[in-house]
Amino acid sequence: MNIIDGGITASSGFSAAGIFCGIKKRKKDLALVVSDRPCTAAGAFTTNVVKAAPVVWDQAIIATEPTVQAIVINSGNANACTAAQGDEDCKSMARLSGEALGLKAEQVLVCSTGVIGVPLPMERIEEGVAAIAKVLASDRQAASDAAEAICTTDTFTKEVAVSLTIDGVTVHIGGMAKGSGMIHPNMATMLSFITTDATIEKDVLQSLLGSSIVDSYNMISVDGDTSTNDTVLVLANGASGCAPLSASHPDWQRFADAFTYVHTALAKLIVRDGEGAGKFLEVIVEGAEDTATARTLARSIISSNLVKTAFFGSDANWGRILCAMGYSGASFNPLAVDLFFISEKGRVQVVENGVPLPFDERLARAILMEREVVTRAILKDGDGEATAWGCDLSYEYVRINGEYRS
Amino acid sequence: MNIIDGGITASSGFSAAGIFCGIKKRKKDLALVVSDRPCTAAGAFTTNVVKAAPVVWDQAIIATEPTVQAIVINSGNANACTAAQGDEDCKSMARLSGEALGLKAEQVLVCSTGVIGVPLPMERIEEGVAAIAKVLASDRQAASDAAEAICTTDTFTKEVAVSLTIDGVTVHIGGMAKGSGMIHPNMATMLSFITTDATIEKDVLQSLLGSSIVDSYNMISVDGDTSTNDTVLVLANGASGCAPLSASHPDWQRFADAFTYVHTALAKLIVRDGEGAGKFLEVIVEGAEDTATARTLARSIISSNLVKTAFFGSDANWGRILCAMGYSGASFNPLAVDLFFISEKGRVQVVENGVPLPFDERLARAILMEREVVTRAILKDGDGEATAWGCDLSYEYVRINGEYRS
Repeated sequence: MNIIDGGITASSGFSAAGIFCGIKKRKKDLALVVSDRPCTAAGAFTTNVVKAAPVVWDQAIIATEPTVQAIVINSGNANACTAAQGDEDCKSMARLSGEALGLKAEQVLVCSTGVIGVPLPMERIEEGVAAIAKVLASDRQAASDAAEAICTTDTFTKEVAVSLTIDGVTVHIGGMAKGSGMIHPNMATMLSFITTDATIEKDVLQSLLGSSIVDSYNMISVDGDTSTNDTVLVLANGASGCAPLSASHPDWQRFADAFTYVHTALAKLIVRDGEGAGKFLEVIVEGAEDTATARTLARSIISSNLVKTAFFGSDANWGRILCAMGYSGASFNPLAVDLFFISEKGRVQVVENGVPLPFDERLARAILMEREVVTRAILKDGDGEATAWGCDLSYEYVRINGEYRS
Repeated sequence: MNIIDGGITASSGFSAAGIFCGIKKRKKDLALVVSDRPCTAAGAFTTNVVKAAPVVWDQAIIATEPTVQAIVINSGNANACTAAQGDEDCKSMARLSGEALGLKAEQVLVCSTGVIGVPLPMERIEEGVAAIAKVLASDRQAASDAAEAICTTDTFTKEVAVSLTIDGVTVHIGGMAKGSGMIHPNMATMLSFITTDATIEKDVLQSLLGSSIVDSYNMISVDGDTSTNDTVLVLANGASGCAPLSASHPDWQRFADAFTYVHTALAKLIVRDGEGAGKFLEVIVEGAEDTATARTLARSIISSNLVKTAFFGSDANWGRILCAMGYSGASFNPLAVDLFFISEKGRVQVVENGVPLPFDERLARAILMEREVVTRAILKDGDGEATAWGCDLSYEYVRINGEYRS
């Protein structure tokens, strides 16, 4: 697998665009991703009971349509908590995009992110969709424009692309994502889009996506709030000409690893751009009873406000880590936990078999002052292993999220 | 039921004291609560897998001893993550207190709160226990001293007392609690102690405590972290001379209500003193499928960082509230939710049947600027009702918890 410069258009046969259509005040707010041929598609969606209109639309399309060919995304308005009008507007977005592209509405997936509880400005979207369909391109810039247009208060665009050789042909996987951003009256939303020119059946793609999100998006936490709009969409158009991929293909594992790599890389970029984040935190749990237990423990640590504020303060506050493991609901032997902090400045062990070790506070502080810090918890309960990623909880997080919407 | 001025010594036959013994730098750090006769006892403890030594001790005592007669509490050191030495030290604390009071070690419950992972300074505790046993008193001041000695960075002491007439005699219930405070290297801990001079069998008392905590301590959230030391202890000594209370007693419900009132009042005081809290938030959920659903929804709202920062910013950010309900795991109809913000400045409805209402932003802001704000979510799914209490998430929370331990 090669990591290549590129984004959503890295896969053959895909074009994209990102423009300003007037939903936001100034910044790009409309993106379009189109394949030159029908694609199998897979999706993963928010588990929130309150689902935005486009989430409902996409779930239905993925469930019923054998193929799709485009995704239209707007930022600046989440089309959430907008009741029947929201469903109508979402459907119109798909229909208008389809008309501009010569596709049925049911071949267009829709995503929205931004303000909730406010109807979409359909006139602007109508004009925007007509305009954006005319500027589709498959070059690097087009991918960047689309990646920019899906952002809310993200401070940088998030793109990843890889290539690998399968059946003697080059297969690509490209992706873009947006993280938690706040918009009047706001809510954090995660959107991630992946294209590939691999040939892969719909059910296989959906199953692969299901297993890929478990160790990528599901292992990151910015603030523990699950949005109404969270969506991951994958389109596979087969343009590479490789043989259909599935578990019986000899290169399946290589493809699956590359696919998961792209999701994990995007997930980590989202956390790096977490609201107010000053530090990128990685939590590795090893030796747990099983993988599920390791995931639960790692997620509980990375989600704890007390752990996050301790990292903000560069405080080797290991007690909070043991505490967060303890209330995670996972079973483990607290008297068999070893705990380490690791960064470019070195490595310090603070707990051995659940008992505090005397340690060099100055070294620990130097390690924790770095912008990337790894916490490693080694248990002796089994072979379960998992990694979670998160960020510190800072004044800036409170400022961004506490500011009056004006 | 009358609310009376008093604390842990409001119940007949109980004495208390609070002194400085040298665990902290200056402030009172050792408290003792003693009954002049054996008491039935009940306890509720942290669900954290990582349990401090005194939690393990108290659970064993409550499970096996028919009666107890005293509680010794130190602040400044949590005796958590201290392994075998911690268990030994805890037992010594009980034994030393017993010796000073003429009781067996098994008649003494123990609580600790403060720094974790550091052995107790047993020499100071030995001297302290000998000294405190000599200054026990049953007056108001003694109760206050004890309430002060259990505090960590609480900014005020938390005491509640009530009286009611049962069988023609006056029965008292008195209590003291401490909330989330941070101590080098720190962790939030909740401790709550209740005495009553009612006559009540051990099993009945334990069962009553179990039902009382569900709607009191279990409905508050400061930061979602469950400590290694959280403990609620109740002692009942029968000194009032009332007939044994149980569900078959005609005044049972009145007693149970008073008992729950004391727990709820202490729980609310803990939240009012939440770290960095500027606002006291009450969340009422009505019309849920059942009580459990209402509790889950109310707790999810009060625990959301995004909701808490919105209240910090006095922002009528109702979308975050619907979102937190949505990811709570509880089932409800989002298109049947009405949402109100209420304070001394008035009342504003922001959502009707899941759809945003236009509302007066200036009034909403004035309502949310108050130090006490009620959020009321009315569902149409059933009769389930619950109330949760919490506080906003402020810069001050981040400062307190992010500061380097020096």
